[in-house]
Amino acid sequence: MQTKLTRLLGIEHPIIQGGMAWIADASLASAVSNAGGLGIISAMNANADWVREEIRKCRTLTDKPFGVNIMLMSPHVEEVAKMVAEEKVPVVTTGAGNPSRFVKMWKEAGIKILPVVASTALAKMVERAGVDAVIAEGGESGGHVGDLTTMALVPQVVDAVKIPVVAAGGIGDGRGMVAAFALGACGVQMGTRFLVANECTVSDAYKKKVLSAKDISTMVTGRRLGHPVRAIKTTYTNAYAKLEADSNYPDEKLEEFGVGSLRKAAKDGNTEEGCFLAGQIAGMVSREQPAKEIVDEVMAEAEKLMEGVKWDV
Amino acid sequence: MQTKLTRLLGIEHPIIQGGMAWIADASLASAVSNAGGLGIISAMNANADWVREEIRKCRTLTDKPFGVNIMLMSPHVEEVAKMVAEEKVPVVTTGAGNPSRFVKMWKEAGIKILPVVASTALAKMVERAGVDAVIAEGGESGGHVGDLTTMALVPQVVDAVKIPVVAAGGIGDGRGMVAAFALGACGVQMGTRFLVANECTVSDAYKKKVLSAKDISTMVTGRRLGHPVRAIKTTYTNAYAKLEADSNYPDEKLEEFGVGSLRKAAKDGNTEEGCFLAGQIAGMVSREQPAKEIVDEVMAEAEKLMEGVKWDV
Repeated sequence: MQTKLTRLLGIEHPIIQGGMAWIADASLASAVSNAGGLGIISAMNANADWVREEIRKCRTLTDKPFGVNIMLMSPHVEEVAKMVAEEKVPVVTTGAGNPSRFVKMWKEAGIKILPVVASTALAKMVERAGVDAVIAEGGESGGHVGDLTTMALVPQVVDAVKIPVVAAGGIGDGRGMVAAFALGACGVQMGTRFLVANECTVSDAYKKKVLSAKDISTMVTGRRLGHPVRAIKTTYTNAYAKLEADSNYPDEKLEEFGVGSLRKAAKDGNTEEGCFLAGQIAGMVSREQPAKEIVDEVMAEAEKLMEGVKWDV
Repeated sequence: MQTKLTRLLGIEHPIIQGGMAWIADASLASAVSNAGGLGIISAMNANADWVREEIRKCRTLTDKPFGVNIMLMSPHVEEVAKMVAEEKVPVVTTGAGNPSRFVKMWKEAGIKILPVVASTALAKMVERAGVDAVIAEGGESGGHVGDLTTMALVPQVVDAVKIPVVAAGGIGDGRGMVAAFALGACGVQMGTRFLVANECTVSDAYKKKVLSAKDISTMVTGRRLGHPVRAIKTTYTNAYAKLEADSNYPDEKLEEFGVGSLRKAAKDGNTEEGCFLAGQIAGMVSREQPAKEIVDEVMAEAEKLMEGVKWDV
């Protein structure tokens, strides 16, 4: 299936893998790229050396296009931004802000730029800065979330910009992909579904949490500090939510409470102190599978639903 | 376009109008039914006499099927539930709970029952009780909201039950309708879009708020008291949110603070003390139109998108 997204990125299927911190490494990214989607390495809060090593590792594992997700609030954002230009990675996606100041440097390095946006205002801003497409992500996604949902956000972003729009958040199968196309998107980004890919190196405890989740198993914490995240309900999230609701509990201590919780979930599989980020479609994910099987399944479902129709995607 | 929903309700188009308290009266309901959708009268917290009068008024305005939305937390719920059975209204939708105890009485009166659900658990429960279909409503909708979004909720409900599923929340045009079909729904419920119908008797100030809203103009308040609602950001919602975040402010006073705010918005157009409930697609709604034009536009957009495809809806 060819869409604006497959043509833009030179990939086979209009599927981008979400850039999940502590999870999306060279192993997962190369597997998704080899499956014909776009694999993404998460630069999270890591320094340039660590990210460069993952990029080089990814290149030994695939000769297909892949990307790096740059978290704009990272303390190492400047050095990572320069490094990806030096490395000429095919694609950069960005999160948590406005990447306009890096656009010129990345374009000169031949990089395709797809910022994640949660509002029409940011979509218009990055379009003016010259990015190639936007990823409109609804708040049903895992990890950092905005207020708008995919169903409401995607058509409003489509109406607000002329560049291609990719839909993210709440998409776990071919039905979600076709819904995204109906809303005007030309592709999807999926995180949670790839979290349980065989090639994903996240802890077994994390995969188990996702595989056993129900529809109502996730919740949002962190609104009070201005950076809400969606995670699977656990001892940790319940404790956090309780402290968050207590306005006598100081912001600084609340901030401290969260430190290290992602690593503890992703690397240590610590079910007591870990924060297991996942989207609302965790309830639809019930099998660990190779990344290629996930991609093929989603595409087959989508193609079956769309049989006979000429979609302008 | 025939779907399971149009066949179930004997209507022309698979569109249900949302049961908006203080807004959805005989005027709006009859206009939507005359347009070929299913108009809904909101029973809100009103007593049986008031609702009966609206039903009878509606019958003078249309000979097409229409429905009543029964808010299960209403103090008058028992008498209203009996009255709709006496009146043999064609359709009942329910909100804010589990209507199982009324199902037998309503079925005996020949009423089609479509509860609004926000989780797969409630969907399965009402299916077992014998309802005809469910309306799976995502939290991007206006008014009372659940946690799950439409994109994540609808396919999970579709997988959980055998009865037809209607999608609600975040649907404002034909793109949303086709997205709903892709997710497995057989129809949509729309509230916000009908709020600005010519036949909607809500205050002009309310319509103006919706017409001038942007994508990020709504917010959710009331989570602390366990009944979150989505409304347009105003002086009132900001004040409420501030009190809500202050855990030293007592629940009882917070509850009191909200009393009368819906009526003040819908009837008085009080922009200082009113609570203007609306969904996230308010940003897509930019014109006051006759209900029939809204229905025809949505259907034309959806049919154009689906041209040539054989959808099993």
